[in-house]
Amino acid sequence: MNCEVLAIGTELLLGQVVDTNSSWIGEQLALTGIDCLYQAKVGDNPARIRTALREAVDRSDAVIVCGGLGPTQDDITRDVIAEVMGVPLHRDAAVEERIRTMFGSRGRDMPANNLRQADVPEGATLMAQQPGTAPGLICPVGDKVVYAVPGVPYEMKEMVEGSVLPDLARRAGVQSVIRSRTLRTWGHSESGIAEVLADRIVELDALGNPTIAFLASGIEGLKVRVTAKADDDAAAESILEAELAVLAPILGDWTFSAEDESMETVVLGLLRERGLTLAVAESVTGGLVMARLTAAPGTSDVLKGGVVSYFSEVKYDLLDVPEGPVVSLEAAKAMADGVRKLLEADVGLGVTGVAGPEEQEGQPVGTVFCGWAIGDDVDAVRVQLPGDRRRVRDFATITLLDLLRRRLLA
Amino acid sequence: MNCEVLAIGTELLLGQVVDTNSSWIGEQLALTGIDCLYQAKVGDNPARIRTALREAVDRSDAVIVCGGLGPTQDDITRDVIAEVMGVPLHRDAAVEERIRTMFGSRGRDMPANNLRQADVPEGATLMAQQPGTAPGLICPVGDKVVYAVPGVPYEMKEMVEGSVLPDLARRAGVQSVIRSRTLRTWGHSESGIAEVLADRIVELDALGNPTIAFLASGIEGLKVRVTAKADDDAAAESILEAELAVLAPILGDWTFSAEDESMETVVLGLLRERGLTLAVAESVTGGLVMARLTAAPGTSDVLKGGVVSYFSEVKYDLLDVPEGPVVSLEAAKAMADGVRKLLEADVGLGVTGVAGPEEQEGQPVGTVFCGWAIGDDVDAVRVQLPGDRRRVRDFATITLLDLLRRRLLA
Repeated sequence: MNCEVLAIGTELLLGQVVDTNSSWIGEQLALTGIDCLYQAKVGDNPARIRTALREAVDRSDAVIVCGGLGPTQDDITRDVIAEVMGVPLHRDAAVEERIRTMFGSRGRDMPANNLRQADVPEGATLMAQQPGTAPGLICPVGDKVVYAVPGVPYEMKEMVEGSVLPDLARRAGVQSVIRSRTLRTWGHSESGIAEVLADRIVELDALGNPTIAFLASGIEGLKVRVTAKADDDAAAESILEAELAVLAPILGDWTFSAEDESMETVVLGLLRERGLTLAVAESVTGGLVMARLTAAPGTSDVLKGGVVSYFSEVKYDLLDVPEGPVVSLEAAKAMADGVRKLLEADVGLGVTGVAGPEEQEGQPVGTVFCGWAIGDDVDAVRVQLPGDRRRVRDFATITLLDLLRRRLLA
Repeated sequence: MNCEVLAIGTELLLGQVVDTNSSWIGEQLALTGIDCLYQAKVGDNPARIRTALREAVDRSDAVIVCGGLGPTQDDITRDVIAEVMGVPLHRDAAVEERIRTMFGSRGRDMPANNLRQADVPEGATLMAQQPGTAPGLICPVGDKVVYAVPGVPYEMKEMVEGSVLPDLARRAGVQSVIRSRTLRTWGHSESGIAEVLADRIVELDALGNPTIAFLASGIEGLKVRVTAKADDDAAAESILEAELAVLAPILGDWTFSAEDESMETVVLGLLRERGLTLAVAESVTGGLVMARLTAAPGTSDVLKGGVVSYFSEVKYDLLDVPEGPVVSLEAAKAMADGVRKLLEADVGLGVTGVAGPEEQEGQPVGTVFCGWAIGDDVDAVRVQLPGDRRRVRDFATITLLDLLRRRLLA
């Protein structure tokens, strides 16, 4: 069983948008045990979409068409699929009603164009998930199948996970299951991780199952993915568990999550377990640390809040940082302690540094001071981070949170 | 003249690496006036690369093959191109010498595999740029041409800019240039913008030049891209200017930038022009507004900083919000005014609301109150935003900044 991906949109060919959808779908197909041998992009042109879709249907067992389901004139995926199926479109009353209701609930007038999204090829099935206005479609073409999903990533992901992958697995009569577990690590480079795992990888290469892959994911840490193949879920899980037990002592406390959790989720969990509240003072990261901490729901019992002290006077006046250099160990310590006192929190964090592009107070770009205040432990460290402004800010964020994690576990 | 892109590598299909090369090449081709109608990815499989390359050569005037030029066994692009050309490979003595020298100069032993990179199809020309060990190749196939470049981005870019684009332009006898301008808008849905512009789009469709495209980019706003084709830069720019003059009154103050700037760049610019400093109090957005404002350099003369008041008591104690409901117009107003006073800034912003997944204080998910304090103008508005937690927070951020923009321009 194989399935290819056809991404629709002139903006993809012009390089205005990078096609991350196909990559994500490719990964999910691999994890489901479905081969993905081709991925292609075409623009919003009916003739070229038709040709590309016909070729894809001829060549593969299944095709996921991504994009072109929106309400505008150049969203023509529905029409072309109906042509390739050799059927007319009809307007689905339930979808029409749903679209009208969605607009009504926001108190906005609905442009008439939007109803085009209720047009469905005869014989196609609607996917149950409908996070946006455009429904996903399961379209039989002979003994093959074309799935149509929107190009909006979160809508696409919900439909691929909820409808496409289960339908593909059912059609494939997939017996063997593929399961993965992702460890997240921080504090070591990709080549460093590869080096400590080198012996184990040689052993696994000989066995063939499970396999290990690495992926450096910036602020998400360095991911180590273990993948096992087996006859059923239980067998796959037991291979994974055994392998994780082998890896745990090798990776040590570089591993911050064995459950693919983000650093902020891990840190919030540790604080919650200990009944501690947190306050954060940010300079170089400008709010990024708190924005990350509050990205997921359920922060509001732990994070009291914090201060972004971009001007030096805000550090002096509000956080009681001693007058003087603000890119320093002393400032980071004082920020952590000051914000803890100001917000009456149990734990304080402070971060100051130079994100660039210019040096500051004679310190080079990438110089970052991370401070913490936990009980009597009020201290700071200096780190030198690589990269441009964005990477320095991202790395400063995960480095600060990792320091807190290690303090809480110590 | 058109040119398609074929990216080679199983890692691209598995989603381990996102294919940003094709996007970048697509953009360069567009800017050079070469149409790029197809882009495809295939794995490191000789039969499938061969089929994909033959189809591409049949369909298009030129093909850029990206990747598969490395030294390992699965780097087979050279071999397949030679097959499609119908010629043998020969080992190029100069390239062999160069590879030996590169390894020698780094004091490393050279794996014998590396010499495969000196194998060149008969009749192919080597590109002058050679930033790595793998040379780029210009391979004639009848009256068409296949360019082979490495998958390593900086090597690929140097060769595409230095050899591929000039060669394509020469073959095309390119006289025409393509230029785009992107307007950023906020306050109207994609379908709403399409409806407002419908008449103009019909007129432009008849003319064929310039063209208009839309792109909803979340926190980046809704982009309206105008693209013009002309004999030279000056003529293309004058078509663009004329079209922007037509669009300006239609889009009105939905347009926040005619220069593809972000909302935060625009707002910071307006504040700087007026010599005003800013302080921000965030609840629902948890630091996102300030993280956005500080993402680009050059904020430090405008943004004094702010407070993330996640716990209600932080709002009451630090920002002087009156005790009572914190998801309210009153709280948003008081936050804006309170943070302005606390940080001694000229302008204050406050944002509170419900990002979900649960409702709060009886208010549904998506309810957001945006407050401002500018001189005597201290007020707030309620907005109802669509989507999940992430989208509510993103939309709250751009909505708050857009409100400030409108106040500053009023």
